[in-house]
Amino acid sequence: MRHDLSQTVALLERTPAALNALLRNLPDCWTLSNEGEGTWTAFDIVGHLIHAEHTDWIPRAAMILEHGESQTFKPFNREGQNEKSQGKSLPQLLDEFAAVRAESLSRLRAMKLEPGDLDRRGRHPNFGPVTLGQLLATWAAHDLTHLHQLSRLLAYQYREAVGPWMVFLGVLQCNGHSSAA
Amino acid sequence: MRHDLSQTVALLERTPAALNALLRNLPDCWTLSNEGEGTWTAFDIVGHLIHAEHTDWIPRAAMILEHGESQTFKPFNREGQNEKSQGKSLPQLLDEFAAVRAESLSRLRAMKLEPGDLDRRGRHPNFGPVTLGQLLATWAAHDLTHLHQLSRLLAYQYREAVGPWMVFLGVLQCNGHSSAA
Repeated sequence: MRHDLSQTVALLERTPAALNALLRNLPDCWTLSNEGEGTWTAFDIVGHLIHAEHTDWIPRAAMILEHGESQTFKPFNREGQNEKSQGKSLPQLLDEFAAVRAESLSRLRAMKLEPGDLDRRGRHPNFGPVTLGQLLATWAAHDLTHLHQLSRLLAYQYREAVGPWMVFLGVLQCNGHSSAA
Repeated sequence: MRHDLSQTVALLERTPAALNALLRNLPDCWTLSNEGEGTWTAFDIVGHLIHAEHTDWIPRAAMILEHGESQTFKPFNREGQNEKSQGKSLPQLLDEFAAVRAESLSRLRAMKLEPGDLDRRGRHPNFGPVTLGQLLATWAAHDLTHLHQLSRLLAYQYREAVGPWMVFLGVLQCNGHSSAA
């Protein structure tokens, strides 16, 4: 599947509502549990997605349009949500994510990108040259990697409760853990 | 986390809305693509979840309550959705899933299960004795295994579009594929 911006946007605009439908008012035993020390809860994931809206996707896209490869993206701090989420409730974070995502998509539309713009290049601190198209496709895939993580960490809470069915449930055998973003 | 029926129900009742928010009117290039020959699309997954409501969870729970270990569950046909989904649209399947899930949860409530009932046993064709609690926990974990599969197969469509970011996206390294249900 070739990268098409309208398809990317179609996915990006659905993620907040999908997370909201799954997580709002779900008992804390689901939303505040993780997969062991150093791993994330549902609460952490939503905070992380908010943090990425503020510091990753649109700021990097704007940097590509303005500076091309002459400036290197600031490294993304994937634990950056911890401080900002403190004292907030999950429903608050879900509302905040919906608002910042809508704002990001509005800024994206204001860029009036043409298909040829997707080949414009920026500079990633690890990878070197990357294209705007790769950045925007990664934005959508990043939503999906955290939906994937979320379904896995929720299922993890029932790894014993399911008894012998464990062997049939792929989510309990998953090793697809993201290393960074 | 111990199995608690109210927690299981909280998750089960959210899945249809979460899938609806993610998939309704998402372009076909997302919802009709799979991960290669013999793998499923989003459309297939929703059909499979409907089929499981009809033939797996509540029918097996009712069999445990009525017959205990004296009757063996009928094997679940995990390709059983193919015929039933034919000619339907994804929005139709999403509506149908919401309706059959609501009906299943209504039948579950009518069983008026007490915590002690979760230890009652039935007989699985592969595993032998299983408990009602394990069956109901698996119902919820099965939703999650397919949400996990869905996020992976959607991300798979962008495995090339993300360029070098592929190495950071755990969802693109996932080997947690379910073998049956």
